[in-house]
Amino acid sequence: MTLPSDLFLRRGGERRLRAGHLWVYSNEVDAARTPLSAFQAGDPVTVRAAGGEVLGSAYMDPHSLICARLYAPGRQCALEDALPAALADALAGRELAFAEPHYRLVYGDSDLLPGLVVDRFGDYLVVQLNNAGIERYEGAIVAALVALLRPAGILLRADSRSRREQDLEERVAVVHGEVPPQLPLAENGVRFLAPVHAGQKTGWFYDHRMARERLRTYAPGRSVLDVYSYIGGWGVQAAAFGAREVCCLDSSAAALEGVEANARHNDLEAVVSTLRGNAAETMTALAEQGRQFELVILDPPAFIQRRRDLKKGIKAYRRINELGLRLLAPGGVLVSASCSMHLARADLVAAVQSAAVRAGCRVSLIEQGAQGADHPIHPAIPETEYLKSAFFRRSV
Amino acid sequence: MTLPSDLFLRRGGERRLRAGHLWVYSNEVDAARTPLSAFQAGDPVTVRAAGGEVLGSAYMDPHSLICARLYAPGRQCALEDALPAALADALAGRELAFAEPHYRLVYGDSDLLPGLVVDRFGDYLVVQLNNAGIERYEGAIVAALVALLRPAGILLRADSRSRREQDLEERVAVVHGEVPPQLPLAENGVRFLAPVHAGQKTGWFYDHRMARERLRTYAPGRSVLDVYSYIGGWGVQAAAFGAREVCCLDSSAAALEGVEANARHNDLEAVVSTLRGNAAETMTALAEQGRQFELVILDPPAFIQRRRDLKKGIKAYRRINELGLRLLAPGGVLVSASCSMHLARADLVAAVQSAAVRAGCRVSLIEQGAQGADHPIHPAIPETEYLKSAFFRRSV
Repeated sequence: MTLPSDLFLRRGGERRLRAGHLWVYSNEVDAARTPLSAFQAGDPVTVRAAGGEVLGSAYMDPHSLICARLYAPGRQCALEDALPAALADALAGRELAFAEPHYRLVYGDSDLLPGLVVDRFGDYLVVQLNNAGIERYEGAIVAALVALLRPAGILLRADSRSRREQDLEERVAVVHGEVPPQLPLAENGVRFLAPVHAGQKTGWFYDHRMARERLRTYAPGRSVLDVYSYIGGWGVQAAAFGAREVCCLDSSAAALEGVEANARHNDLEAVVSTLRGNAAETMTALAEQGRQFELVILDPPAFIQRRRDLKKGIKAYRRINELGLRLLAPGGVLVSASCSMHLARADLVAAVQSAAVRAGCRVSLIEQGAQGADHPIHPAIPETEYLKSAFFRRSV
Repeated sequence: MTLPSDLFLRRGGERRLRAGHLWVYSNEVDAARTPLSAFQAGDPVTVRAAGGEVLGSAYMDPHSLICARLYAPGRQCALEDALPAALADALAGRELAFAEPHYRLVYGDSDLLPGLVVDRFGDYLVVQLNNAGIERYEGAIVAALVALLRPAGILLRADSRSRREQDLEERVAVVHGEVPPQLPLAENGVRFLAPVHAGQKTGWFYDHRMARERLRTYAPGRSVLDVYSYIGGWGVQAAAFGAREVCCLDSSAAALEGVEANARHNDLEAVVSTLRGNAAETMTALAEQGRQFELVILDPPAFIQRRRDLKKGIKAYRRINELGLRLLAPGGVLVSASCSMHLARADLVAAVQSAAVRAGCRVSLIEQGAQGADHPIHPAIPETEYLKSAFFRRSV
């Protein structure tokens, strides 16, 4: 193995790294000393302050704004050598929080493995490689995962939006063993089947687990509308926790087939129904029919992909929450979620309050959900926090 | 009953109220038209925009910066007449979220009853009146509570810090029935006795209930240090959920007697020990002895009482969290709480990250706790949100 090259930062460029952050921006590099053009994606480097001090080991992604990502802060170590301990620590963190092996096993920077996401479905793993730099380590990552867990199969889902934006090749492939089309998992004691090859992202969203658990308190006996339901993560759990009736609304026929499969899987097909359509249009139509629900769940896709879309995005959140509140019976509960990293929790709460004023009702914020322990937040990297949910009670 | 007077606002003074806020600041009043000197604390008023439009009904507190507080936005109604429906709605909100009658029944502005706090311990109620205006309604409040719940006793705890700051008379009195010195309650299935006459605030802090419930996941088999333990809300629950050993640290002998009583009450005296001393000094001494715990809980009193103390307060949070991390075993969990309204959640997380850098360890934020559904947040009044907790896992 060749020794990694050095990447020298400009004076002061080390400050954020010293505070625990892991990203090197291209304008922080001393390009005269170590020109970015000398590097290829994935090249290992020792990141050094202007004075030469070692800040850590990183891999390069020289054509991106974030041109290097640290995986071993404060020390010199090849990624291949850092992998086993990083994966073992990630596993220990999940085993601390969850009794069953269904969780996000690796969450990028927060687990000192930037660009890598691994979701675990028992004996199966689904892997995402989200930038050009981490791609080089696919073989080492698969080998380390096999050594740690001896999985029956590993599926690579190299087809994320962030990859498309970087013009990286899209690829979905079984890279170890065999992986059936549907993988079973349990969340809060409710059983699901996740379409890991064809579904959204890795096939399942483990991140809302803790908030969904709270449906155990708010769902029993209630009529529920689950908007942007995907394959029923919220709605089928609401039904399993005792909801009187659940309507899952999504624009995707494949998602609603997943809802029906998951309802059947839990013997809840009598409680769960599906409704296909655009969220805003369908909610407007339901409101015009005078429909009311006692629990409304809004878990939309990210309305804000880039910071410059913030204002427009806030309006979009306000609009769907206003529709949600118009469908909510007095005394009922609105669960409003956002996975937009750029939307602060306070912005979401303000959007719902503004929606309440327009809808002519009064709401209180009674619970706040966040991404679970398998999506740990790196406290020095605010960008690792993206998920929030807020439970509002409508006054009688 | 005499008709309430009008309180006219200056032009533009109604904007915040229209967005749902309930406070009128003295500089928003059209003092030429309706001079504050004409009002006494508690006087009912109809708050009107400059053009005469009714913004709602409020009671006056003319010597405070917040000179009027709305209890009936958008309509004209005497507080005595608004009370029954407001209390019934507050009760419905608590019964929605909690199976047992142990909770904060009324949380001021969020329940449209500004200045009023009522904690419920089954058949007993503890009432706080937190400003000069609401005092006038003591009789009506007690009567409405008796009509709604037929309690065995109501204790008035008119001895809060905010009262002292307003030079209001301090008073602790049984205002209905009888109230024994200790009241039983259950939180997350664990039984406690709260010293409602002599303890801090109303004798018990219901606000951390949801976060304490999470100890069910993180406490089993672990050694626990509960700093600023008061009467054992965190520590005794950790023990009840299966902690191996729990040490409760507090500077108050009375608080530690409460810990011992609550440990005995749950047959946990073999697991729970107490340590009396100043938090920082005792933690420093424990660290010097090389002691380590697998779960450290820091739930300090508010270090930041006024916004101008923010910087100093953040340092204080950083310091105790650094001590907490020095006592935390690798792989262990730090629960860091703050009840300072002026400290944003992001500030607390940043303080812990900075503490981790100083303590030479790496942490991930794995769970975030907030005040429970019996301390609802009014989404238009950010001041109603004050409590946060953050669970950090220390990497191995």
